[in-house]
Amino acid sequence: MDRLFNPKSVALIGASGNPRKWGFIILLNILKGNYGGVVYPVNPNQQSILGYRCYPAVDDIPGPVDLALITTPAKVVATLIDECGAKGIPFVVVVTSDFSETGPQGAKLEREVLESARRHGIRLVGPNSMGIFSSKTNLHAEMPPMMPSRGPVSMFSQSGNVGVQMLAWGANEGVGFEKFVSSGNEADLTCVDYLRYFAQDNDTRVILGYLEGIEPGSDFLPTAREISRKKPVIIFKGGRTNAGGKAAASHTGSMAGSAIIFRSAFRQAGLLQVKTSQALLDCAKAFSNYPLPSGNRVGIITRGGGWGVITADACEENGLAVPSLPEGLLKKFDRLLPKYWSRSNPVDLVATIAYDPYLECLEILAEWEGIDAIIALGAGRRVQNYPYSKEVKGPKELMDTIAIASEAFQRRAERPDKILAGIEQLVSTSGKPIIAVSIGSEAYHKSILENLKVVSYPTPERAVRALKQMYNYRRFLDSL
Amino acid sequence: MDRLFNPKSVALIGASGNPRKWGFIILLNILKGNYGGVVYPVNPNQQSILGYRCYPAVDDIPGPVDLALITTPAKVVATLIDECGAKGIPFVVVVTSDFSETGPQGAKLEREVLESARRHGIRLVGPNSMGIFSSKTNLHAEMPPMMPSRGPVSMFSQSGNVGVQMLAWGANEGVGFEKFVSSGNEADLTCVDYLRYFAQDNDTRVILGYLEGIEPGSDFLPTAREISRKKPVIIFKGGRTNAGGKAAASHTGSMAGSAIIFRSAFRQAGLLQVKTSQALLDCAKAFSNYPLPSGNRVGIITRGGGWGVITADACEENGLAVPSLPEGLLKKFDRLLPKYWSRSNPVDLVATIAYDPYLECLEILAEWEGIDAIIALGAGRRVQNYPYSKEVKGPKELMDTIAIASEAFQRRAERPDKILAGIEQLVSTSGKPIIAVSIGSEAYHKSILENLKVVSYPTPERAVRALKQMYNYRRFLDSL
Repeated sequence: MDRLFNPKSVALIGASGNPRKWGFIILLNILKGNYGGVVYPVNPNQQSILGYRCYPAVDDIPGPVDLALITTPAKVVATLIDECGAKGIPFVVVVTSDFSETGPQGAKLEREVLESARRHGIRLVGPNSMGIFSSKTNLHAEMPPMMPSRGPVSMFSQSGNVGVQMLAWGANEGVGFEKFVSSGNEADLTCVDYLRYFAQDNDTRVILGYLEGIEPGSDFLPTAREISRKKPVIIFKGGRTNAGGKAAASHTGSMAGSAIIFRSAFRQAGLLQVKTSQALLDCAKAFSNYPLPSGNRVGIITRGGGWGVITADACEENGLAVPSLPEGLLKKFDRLLPKYWSRSNPVDLVATIAYDPYLECLEILAEWEGIDAIIALGAGRRVQNYPYSKEVKGPKELMDTIAIASEAFQRRAERPDKILAGIEQLVSTSGKPIIAVSIGSEAYHKSILENLKVVSYPTPERAVRALKQMYNYRRFLDSL
Repeated sequence: MDRLFNPKSVALIGASGNPRKWGFIILLNILKGNYGGVVYPVNPNQQSILGYRCYPAVDDIPGPVDLALITTPAKVVATLIDECGAKGIPFVVVVTSDFSETGPQGAKLEREVLESARRHGIRLVGPNSMGIFSSKTNLHAEMPPMMPSRGPVSMFSQSGNVGVQMLAWGANEGVGFEKFVSSGNEADLTCVDYLRYFAQDNDTRVILGYLEGIEPGSDFLPTAREISRKKPVIIFKGGRTNAGGKAAASHTGSMAGSAIIFRSAFRQAGLLQVKTSQALLDCAKAFSNYPLPSGNRVGIITRGGGWGVITADACEENGLAVPSLPEGLLKKFDRLLPKYWSRSNPVDLVATIAYDPYLECLEILAEWEGIDAIIALGAGRRVQNYPYSKEVKGPKELMDTIAIASEAFQRRAERPDKILAGIEQLVSTSGKPIIAVSIGSEAYHKSILENLKVVSYPTPERAVRALKQMYNYRRFLDSL
């Protein structure tokens, strides 16, 4: 499989000079991704594309080829695979659709393609795949024009669109990917194969999967159980309901099983099942950047009572505990906080806006053996923005103050945040995950992650959801 | 209450020249918000603040005063309220904290404040309020330096922090507010009073509330039931769990009731109860911009099968139906779509990326009497971004193509989107809510709302969640 994900050379069969064809778009993506190997466009009707020599047939390619991608019409794919076999190409990604997902006619073509591959010992991705991505060789052989961030997350997806959107979200939020495959109709290689490969891949630390269906008798669950002992496998299951199942049947042709049966089988296999698309990426972010908590006990620190309440509710609703503070800890906090602080967990700083007491409270919480994780509300940028009505007129003193306040906000917004820097250090010294929550754009949260290695979300509920999955995984590991 | 929310003149008692004091920050916010009335800073120790004359005492203010805000220490508040009474001020917002939320001592002070107000017939907001906002008079008398967007949403909040964060999110996402009050400890005016006022306020079309507790014997539920007949009231309840209830008790001193009892009582009162902070704002956006669906039947249109599956799952899990398409409709779609389209709802355009077929499919769905709402996946910007590795080197033809493609992306990103413009029109002609879903930043979704009046979210699950609440409200109205 290394030659699939890290090929030294790629043939693009069906390469095209027409910017509306996938054979053009994929070639452009490979080239602008700065692919580290050699790419051979193949098309009998073109001399060159994008300045690169085009080969009339696979047989004309001068060097060895590790991987071929096919984007031609469906009816010629089986023949082209024969040609790939003659050339000794070990892996073929069939991007072409119009196979079993479209009905009996397509299913027949798909069988022919598979037979052709089997004859030559070729392993197939797809058909109906949106391509693959590999960070190590800069291989961006995927359909939409995008460029994922690099990181320790690898993903297989039974929906190309869902997969590439995760890559796009990841790029927006700083969640980096190592490898990605859109598994398409899985005529040959299936998610079980990708799971196994990601499991032994040292560059992959977290595995994501979007799954619509599993073949009856598939090795998926026993394989997943083995792999979950080594790495977290986070699954988003499409087709959990009748409506979703019907849609999945017409999409990938997969049969949906009962949601309850799936959920319980997944849990036994140690798989972490998320319920929303956003949760899939949120979990990838937490798992790939933070240590696991040792248990389910959460310390909450907040600048405002209401957010503490909301976070405590979300914790309890998700099986996380919010333990009371022992007397010794109360006394420590008493020395730091205004006398009317909450004297309980959540630790409510009651509008204390200075940096230092917040950081000192965090340190006390992080050192305390009574909790396994911290949610730090209002860590990060303290003020959202500092706008004012452009129509304001007033005394010079007012106008000067507005200008100075706006500048001060700008400076604060650009300055590395002392609390977030403190969190980065405390995560490393305490070994506990400390998740920050603050208002801010995707780009802001991305910058926190990239510059300070701090996992942060814009709502406490998203922080709790990620923490809950980390605790679920810890519990699975402890049960082994 | 009009003189509270739309005062012609405001006295700020405890105005300060010290930028770290709330008496300074609130004054600055009022001034930079371009408040339409007169503001009188009151402080015996200052001649002027921000270039505005400062009055030694309330009694020295030359004109009549509709509203006083107090930010002084707690122990002098009762006396100051006496002075407000002598001046004939009808409403006082007590921003000062350190009252009943801090224990018996504070509770005693709070009773004195209340008695003082009662003696003079003054109505009190707070104490421990973060202030009020009113769009009509540009009154930004709230603590954090922010500037909410204007719109038809009014909100009361038993947590100042939660409330102002909703205003900040609203400003980021284009959800506009008409009035806001942080109700604080509710010594006098309670959320029931604000609810009644928002109910008869013609500028308010949607009411939001963050609620931690209701006094035993409160009129809240019967009042809410009356008001829900006229306007949607969307409630986020803090203190649903033991952990959250304990936090709420130490925050606002409110007793949390059982989550199940609350949920069922709220439903009977027609209140729409959301489960997360994000959902509160998402619902405000949908309710204030779109017509209600007539029922729970949803048409889904998608560019990729997986997202259709995910959306159908979310619909069914939230009590929304995804009806099958009748033969007549299938034939209409057959004429527009590639032969391998899904032939079912979700209508999967299978990577048809042109504008026109998408729009025509939307029109067919909108006209169909078999559905009450549409979720339009992948409407909006079709391509997330068009980046490329800066290290790319290659033939001139490649480099030129990359440059041209990048420019084309920029142009597309800046151009008003034909599909979104079509959705705006279809919502108005069909009377059905059509919610768009597309990847993009908060700023992007805000621009869609502001320029095209189209409600859009970055995930289908958020679209479904908002639609479900619209359907819940429709069902309540139909049950009357």
